[in-house]
Amino acid sequence: MSAPKPHDRLGQILADEMGAVNELIQARMASENAPRIPEVTAHLVNAGGKRLRPMLTLASAALCNNESPYHIHLAATVEFIHTATLLHDDVVDESAQRRGRPTANLLWDNQSSVLVGDYLFSRSFQLMVETGNMRVLDILANASATIAEGEVLQLTVAQDLATTEDTYIKVVRGKTAALFSAACKVGGVIAGADEKIVSALESYGDALGISFQIADDLLDYSGHAATMGKNVGDDFRERKMSLPLIKALAQSDASELDFWKRTIAKGDQRDGDLEQALEIIAKYGVIDATRADATFWAEKSKSALEVLPQSEIRDTLIALPDYVVSRAV
Amino acid sequence: MSAPKPHDRLGQILADEMGAVNELIQARMASENAPRIPEVTAHLVNAGGKRLRPMLTLASAALCNNESPYHIHLAATVEFIHTATLLHDDVVDESAQRRGRPTANLLWDNQSSVLVGDYLFSRSFQLMVETGNMRVLDILANASATIAEGEVLQLTVAQDLATTEDTYIKVVRGKTAALFSAACKVGGVIAGADEKIVSALESYGDALGISFQIADDLLDYSGHAATMGKNVGDDFRERKMSLPLIKALAQSDASELDFWKRTIAKGDQRDGDLEQALEIIAKYGVIDATRADATFWAEKSKSALEVLPQSEIRDTLIALPDYVVSRAV
Repeated sequence: MSAPKPHDRLGQILADEMGAVNELIQARMASENAPRIPEVTAHLVNAGGKRLRPMLTLASAALCNNESPYHIHLAATVEFIHTATLLHDDVVDESAQRRGRPTANLLWDNQSSVLVGDYLFSRSFQLMVETGNMRVLDILANASATIAEGEVLQLTVAQDLATTEDTYIKVVRGKTAALFSAACKVGGVIAGADEKIVSALESYGDALGISFQIADDLLDYSGHAATMGKNVGDDFRERKMSLPLIKALAQSDASELDFWKRTIAKGDQRDGDLEQALEIIAKYGVIDATRADATFWAEKSKSALEVLPQSEIRDTLIALPDYVVSRAV
Repeated sequence: MSAPKPHDRLGQILADEMGAVNELIQARMASENAPRIPEVTAHLVNAGGKRLRPMLTLASAALCNNESPYHIHLAATVEFIHTATLLHDDVVDESAQRRGRPTANLLWDNQSSVLVGDYLFSRSFQLMVETGNMRVLDILANASATIAEGEVLQLTVAQDLATTEDTYIKVVRGKTAALFSAACKVGGVIAGADEKIVSALESYGDALGISFQIADDLLDYSGHAATMGKNVGDDFRERKMSLPLIKALAQSDASELDFWKRTIAKGDQRDGDLEQALEIIAKYGVIDATRADATFWAEKSKSALEVLPQSEIRDTLIALPDYVVSRAV
């Protein structure tokens, strides 16, 4: 029997607490006054995301010998923030599919996605206020602002062929890593961990989030995406300045640059363009170079946890970044 | 010389503090990383809304002999929440005009309105966390959830001719009164006022918000709206179940019901339909009946403040609901 995936192993170790988180999520996503709300949220919540972020909060709290009952609230909080951003992202991206199912904006309308997203944000806010812990409120307020800033930055650099890798990392730190990082950090804070440990958890989440996003970008050009409930070539069709594209652009010759200008900057895409994009990407070894970046951040993530004493949870968290990178190849 | 409008008088009395609120708003609406953010927010903030909500917070704090410096933060917080909801409302309503100027979704795009709205929500959240006062966080978290719930409820009853006055009040309590009420309440709480006073401020804001919204609905059918930077007949064209429409429907005969079914439920509107809608509304005295409701809530609002000792601010707050109703006729 092969070893379980790190994510599944965390799910086994934290099964009881994840059960409590799921119950809290179900209870708080309801609304007596507006029945549309549970319809939309049930669609998303039951779609069976991996619940990775709340698991990071529970695992971080467990690593710090947590005795507060509020790690459950915080785990539900980060999942609500994540779900709210998914609802708004789908409106912004005009997506039709998420986790292999039609998106809420397609099943209902953009209006419902915007407003139910707002509702989930405010519900997350209520949950964290209930912890009565000012420091976790501060961390999550700052993470929320960083997420929104990253999303706006992504929007303004969209289709901009001059986007640099530095700008890409800034976007990713906002849209993905800020919540991973906050999810880990609040787990340590609620458990009353030392600053050194809190800071290690924060760094772990930040680097894990970046490697996670780079791996996600890679999947979109690497042809295995169909199995992940994602459409291969989505990023190309949505003209996203993802890392493989930025790396390919930096090496492209004049005629290839014309191709990117037409397909990405102008958005004039024709039959066979995705195949040509994949050819250019293969020609310059972009997949390997992008994977090397994902691996760099995965290593950074793993090494952050070295200050913590050995335990099964710590070792499973350390195995997670490698798994995240491996699923992308 | 006639007496100044209550709103202008509050602006005079609270001029120094409103100056500090405006400075804080300018500082916090900025973003180093995403220049689109200040572009969009400046468009809205400089459009010169009345800043009624932050003024209510400052006035309430002043009534309670506030000595905390954080009433400025809370006033900026409620204005940010308000501005964020305006950005999202314009996307949901597909509005083209707000305060007599093109809306942000028209000048930029819906994406920017959704994401910059999220940014302002998270900035409001940071501001309130800085107060370090758990009770104001609780009040504002609950208000945020009530606002979002009211907005979703409004969306789901849109174009539903069976909408009752009770449902209407539920929507209005969410989309308008919750923030008025929270704005007043947190002013009292930050000042450390007695529960009796805090509760009076909360009731004042709730009833003021309801009369404010009814007056706003009335304006849309009363023909003076052009001067308010609003398009006459907007609610009719957007098929909103506003109070005048609900009251007209309750009295309509069979052929009038057919008219409403066609224009509101089905959305098949033709030249001359707005004029016919106004005729039906005039025929049943709906304007007077709606104004009577606005007056009922205005009286309720005024009487809530009777427990407070006489002062110029109290008397100006008491004059405000009457002014709100009078501008609608």
